[in-house]
Amino acid sequence: MRVSKQGLGPCKAKSDTGHFGHFGSEDRPKLYLNSHSTTCAQVGKTAYRDSCRLKQLEGFGTEAQSRCLHRYICSQTHEQWSLQNVSALLKAEKTQRRFFAAKAIPLTGERLGLKRQAQFAQLTPDDLAVFRGILNGSATSVLTDAADVAAYNEDWMRKYKGASQLVLKPKTVEQVSAILSHAHSRSLAVVTQGGNTGLVGGSVPVFDEIVLSTSSMNQIQHFDETAGILTCQAGCVLEVLDKWLAERGYAMPLDLGAKGTCQIGGNVATNAGGLRLLRYGSLHGTVLSMEVVKADGTIMKLGQPLRKDNTGYDLKHLFIGSEGTLGVITSVSILTPRKPTAVNVAVLALNNFEAVQSAFKLARTNLTEVLSAFEFWDGACANLVLKHVPNTRNPFDSDTPSPFYVLIETSGSNAEHDTEKLGNYLDMLFEQGIATDGVLAESDTQKAQLWNFRESIPEACSKDGAGGNLKYDISVPVEHIYDIVPVMRSRLEAKGLYDPVDAAGTKREGRVVGFGHFGDGNLHLNITGAAWDKDVEDTVEPFVYEWVQNNNGSISAEHGLGVMKAPYIGYSKSPEAIQAMREIKKIWDPKGILNPYKFLPQQE
Amino acid sequence: MRVSKQGLGPCKAKSDTGHFGHFGSEDRPKLYLNSHSTTCAQVGKTAYRDSCRLKQLEGFGTEAQSRCLHRYICSQTHEQWSLQNVSALLKAEKTQRRFFAAKAIPLTGERLGLKRQAQFAQLTPDDLAVFRGILNGSATSVLTDAADVAAYNEDWMRKYKGASQLVLKPKTVEQVSAILSHAHSRSLAVVTQGGNTGLVGGSVPVFDEIVLSTSSMNQIQHFDETAGILTCQAGCVLEVLDKWLAERGYAMPLDLGAKGTCQIGGNVATNAGGLRLLRYGSLHGTVLSMEVVKADGTIMKLGQPLRKDNTGYDLKHLFIGSEGTLGVITSVSILTPRKPTAVNVAVLALNNFEAVQSAFKLARTNLTEVLSAFEFWDGACANLVLKHVPNTRNPFDSDTPSPFYVLIETSGSNAEHDTEKLGNYLDMLFEQGIATDGVLAESDTQKAQLWNFRESIPEACSKDGAGGNLKYDISVPVEHIYDIVPVMRSRLEAKGLYDPVDAAGTKREGRVVGFGHFGDGNLHLNITGAAWDKDVEDTVEPFVYEWVQNNNGSISAEHGLGVMKAPYIGYSKSPEAIQAMREIKKIWDPKGILNPYKFLPQQE
Ligand SMILES: Cc1cc2nc3c(=O)[nH]c(=O)nc-3n(C[C@H](O)[C@H](O)[C@H](O)COP(=O)(O)OP(=O)(O)OC[C@H]3O[C@@H](n4cnc5c(N)ncnc54)[C@H](O)[C@@H]3O)c2cc1C
Ligand SMILES: Cc1cc2nc3c(=O)[nH]c(=O)nc-3n(C[C@H](O)[C@H](O)[C@H](O)COP(=O)(O)OP(=O)(O)OC[C@H]3O[C@@H](n4cnc5c(N)ncnc54)[C@H](O)[C@@H]3O)c2cc1C
Repeated sequence: MRVSKQGLGPCKAKSDTGHFGHFGSEDRPKLYLNSHSTTCAQVGKTAYRDSCRLKQLEGFGTEAQSRCLHRYICSQTHEQWSLQNVSALLKAEKTQRRFFAAKAIPLTGERLGLKRQAQFAQLTPDDLAVFRGILNGSATSVLTDAADVAAYNEDWMRKYKGASQLVLKPKTVEQVSAILSHAHSRSLAVVTQGGNTGLVGGSVPVFDEIVLSTSSMNQIQHFDETAGILTCQAGCVLEVLDKWLAERGYAMPLDLGAKGTCQIGGNVATNAGGLRLLRYGSLHGTVLSMEVVKADGTIMKLGQPLRKDNTGYDLKHLFIGSEGTLGVITSVSILTPRKPTAVNVAVLALNNFEAVQSAFKLARTNLTEVLSAFEFWDGACANLVLKHVPNTRNPFDSDTPSPFYVLIETSGSNAEHDTEKLGNYLDMLFEQGIATDGVLAESDTQKAQLWNFRESIPEACSKDGAGGNLKYDISVPVEHIYDIVPVMRSRLEAKGLYDPVDAAGTKREGRVVGFGHFGDGNLHLNITGAAWDKDVEDTVEPFVYEWVQNNNGSISAEHGLGVMKAPYIGYSKSPEAIQAMREIKKIWDPKGILNPYKFLPQQE
Repeated sequence: MRVSKQGLGPCKAKSDTGHFGHFGSEDRPKLYLNSHSTTCAQVGKTAYRDSCRLKQLEGFGTEAQSRCLHRYICSQTHEQWSLQNVSALLKAEKTQRRFFAAKAIPLTGERLGLKRQAQFAQLTPDDLAVFRGILNGSATSVLTDAADVAAYNEDWMRKYKGASQLVLKPKTVEQVSAILSHAHSRSLAVVTQGGNTGLVGGSVPVFDEIVLSTSSMNQIQHFDETAGILTCQAGCVLEVLDKWLAERGYAMPLDLGAKGTCQIGGNVATNAGGLRLLRYGSLHGTVLSMEVVKADGTIMKLGQPLRKDNTGYDLKHLFIGSEGTLGVITSVSILTPRKPTAVNVAVLALNNFEAVQSAFKLARTNLTEVLSAFEFWDGACANLVLKHVPNTRNPFDSDTPSPFYVLIETSGSNAEHDTEKLGNYLDMLFEQGIATDGVLAESDTQKAQLWNFRESIPEACSKDGAGGNLKYDISVPVEHIYDIVPVMRSRLEAKGLYDPVDAAGTKREGRVVGFGHFGDGNLHLNITGAAWDKDVEDTVEPFVYEWVQNNNGSISAEHGLGVMKAPYIGYSKSPEAIQAMREIKKIWDPKGILNPYKFLPQQE
């Protein structure tokens, strides 16, 4: 029997030759728990609240934080922290952030050298009166106070900032219709904002666009329990929906780090991918119908909550991933799978990328219908997590990290069956020499710990890149998913801009790491550095986009275009396709009032 | 131990109280085999060919026939009947059909009172010379002989007929581009035709439109074995692709009765649903990218063969279900699941519709990830099959049919696990009194037999309706899927137009039966009669469309609009949505040369 050297407790060796160990059950609560949950578990609500706010102020490391929120705080130990509380807390903290923040965010328009489009009108007191009338004069629905409006002007990453003076929070589709009808007639530009967790600057104004927040549109409208079809308003928070469904034995077909804050309308508007895509597919497959309001205020029903409807062009798909540029999504019907009653999580160490590919192929053959996630990261990522994220540790009894790791999750309806399938699969990997080591979670806590390691990577990258952290969200054919990492290392090295992780020297410190949703061909390429300068950025861009184009990939796998990547769409789409997009935009938003300066390249 | 009274051999009773029996193994080959396969097994190829052709001449009963082709003939017993043979046979028979056919098909334009649109040019010898030049003067690529062209003018149901004088069969996207470029410059109208199995008259000309057949575009272009992404030309036959993938451990995510003839381009252009939709979802979820040629000949690449790409509006979705009106689909990339290694099929008898609903809910909970089909039919359907389809018999030891039946299929990667899950599920149904009887197939032949019963229903309806068979393909929320059947019976009865199945009397014979893809909310409503007249049709239409509209359903769940339902789209889509469709059509086909008179209502 093999015993872990790192105090993981006695391991039940799967087989003597297999090098496969289970966590012992006595070490549940502490392993890998990140700081919030440890704090939370130890010192209770108030300390948690403080620690959480402080963490949020640190910048991008919000993916893991948000995870922490929903994985730990809203779970068994703190049921009293209802979703509403957590959500409200997050909102409140977002509002307060800027008061605490040291870092001042430059205005997006100034930073990117954009010009306010002259055709848009300026907001007048008369406009305000009209909007107040539509929203029944409610003070919580019409925000004009600078302090109230500020949080809606800044994005989650604190990278983009607008100068809106007005936030409108309608509750009904009729109110949205009336708001847009007036805005359209007056040529007032409007940005729709959901949970404001988008990562490409799409959800905040660039200049003085009115913010139409969907946060008050949070009603569940219908649930067809036989077919599993949920119909709800766009402002429902993803996690709230998931919990609501869980009580009825169903689950949302998507899951992402921002689930505690992001809204289903925002998810659909960004065509969010996330952690369950491998299993349940994209929103193009699961969103069954939609209600939208066009720029001129016309309400359009796009389909019915039905699995099948072949009557005409399926227009709702244009709105999935339209990032607020075609209309306001006010309600969505979505097909929900049964909530899995059995979930397994394992992490494996592998020696090279070919082994990762083999492991994936075997997973598709042997775990087939129960495979729900196949995530991967490289040894450099593991090093960064161990270095920067408190209370994480290497799950394996090795001092040097393995070149690659994968996290495999199964979700099914029969625990015994799934465990047997997974066991057979893991045996196969070890017998064939594909994996070199592995851990299998034995409790929900351990599952969360393993997930947490994976989800701490973005945070670790942000912290490592004190001087800068370039993040790319690309997809390429799966067999080439990791190619860009060594290519980028060599390219930076050739220019004297890169130090391999373990080398000590005089050159500037720099790391190129890769991780992502392997099964989806989705790589998150991160380049971090302690002391950064423009040379690095110029060496990386536009080279990375060209490389993606030459490898038949997408420059934005899941985050969208927003204001950040609008100029670069040409690397992934042809001039004919972009021209057609412009013409489609004109059909529903002829004056271009919806989310201007974003999504498509600016025209002279 | 329970023994079937109908010679099914000894049944292994699942439990004494459960009334659940397995087929005995000695009676494999003969049960339920329909006439073709019996003939085939008994008298060999030639007789089969004749019988098959004769069957085809009988009219609509082609769904079961095609099934027969691919389920029996191409299976174990007749490997020498390669796919290519069967496919060629079908094509040849289609060509010959009209010579044998007694029934003359009226021209669609005349029958429906449509007018040829004056803006379209007439084909000239100069045009012909240009097209011959593009297709290298190949005689098999440019068909002008009336006998050769005839088969392309008539649809599968022998209900719609055009008067085209020219069929073009390009092999490459460049040839398609050159053809359309010329057609566009000359305002020549064009109908794209795949396998010509569409059921709404969309695939054949209405007047003298040129037929662009994709049959020669049948190359598999790429297969990503890691991700399971297949890229192929539009003219690949669905079944050929499925077999090709099977050799590599993968499967097509869709399956339909016409698989031996229909093409992937046609499937995508009609957004075909079929038998695997419950499990693998719609083509909107599985089609990853597309190559299309616009009306003016411009080649457009819509995306890449990637699972994730969020750069701009996802235009390919407009082409999924566009029925040849937006452009010619020349190539498709599609995500393919692993081929299941374990498949179970059971048929259950149930006493009422509530029990069917309960059985479905329990199936979602207990069979979850392995559930791959949940089909249902009523007792009246079962009667029609037993009466009209040779060599079918009631699988249960009862003389009176049960009010309802369901066919449940599981597909997974571990036979033992799936059988256990299914066993537990079935026990539950019997313990809770939800099902009254059931059979579980014990061999591939028995599985095919059970499927064949379900798939013989359309044929049985066609035969029962010697005087007429009105067929509606509707979808409504699952809980209301059967409501229209009793409603329609009462409506016809009130007008003296309906005799319940078992009543003998002086009134005209008439049956209203319902079956379909329960899990998809998709009902095939059939109304049949020995002596039919216009009263019946007027009583049914437009009432059936109004009823669907009032029940938030779709008037075409999976077959599309074509020329048949183009005038009725307003029952399922709003004027705003229809207007937007017209504007989208204008973007890619400003002269309207692609598949005119179809899909959208004619404008004055
Ligand atoms: C911690 C973290 C983890 C994340 N993980 C993932 C991940 O795994 N996968 C992934 O794909 N993304 C991920 N994201 C980014 C993702 O896009 C967002 O989390 C989410 O989908 C956006 O929802 P939201 O409600 O916050 O939208 P917002 O950020 O408010 O808006 C995003 C865009 O959609 C538009 N929009 C919002 N609501 C509507 C509406 N009702 N109608 C029309 N337009 C609207 C906005 O105008 C904007 O352009 C992550 C983000 C964070 C912060
Ligand atoms: C026996 C039988 C069983 C069936 N079962 C089902 C079922 O279970 N589910 C279901 O959904 N349907 C079913 N159908 C109907 C179904 O629509 C077709 O079988 C199939 O999807 C059409 O493919 P096809 O290649 O025959 O297309 P065709 O019939 O040739 O064409 C159909 C439409 O698509 C257009 N089209 C074809 N190819 C292209 C292309 N490359 N580019 C652009 N436009 C194109 C045509 O112009 C036409 O409008 C069945 C039909 C039969 C005869």
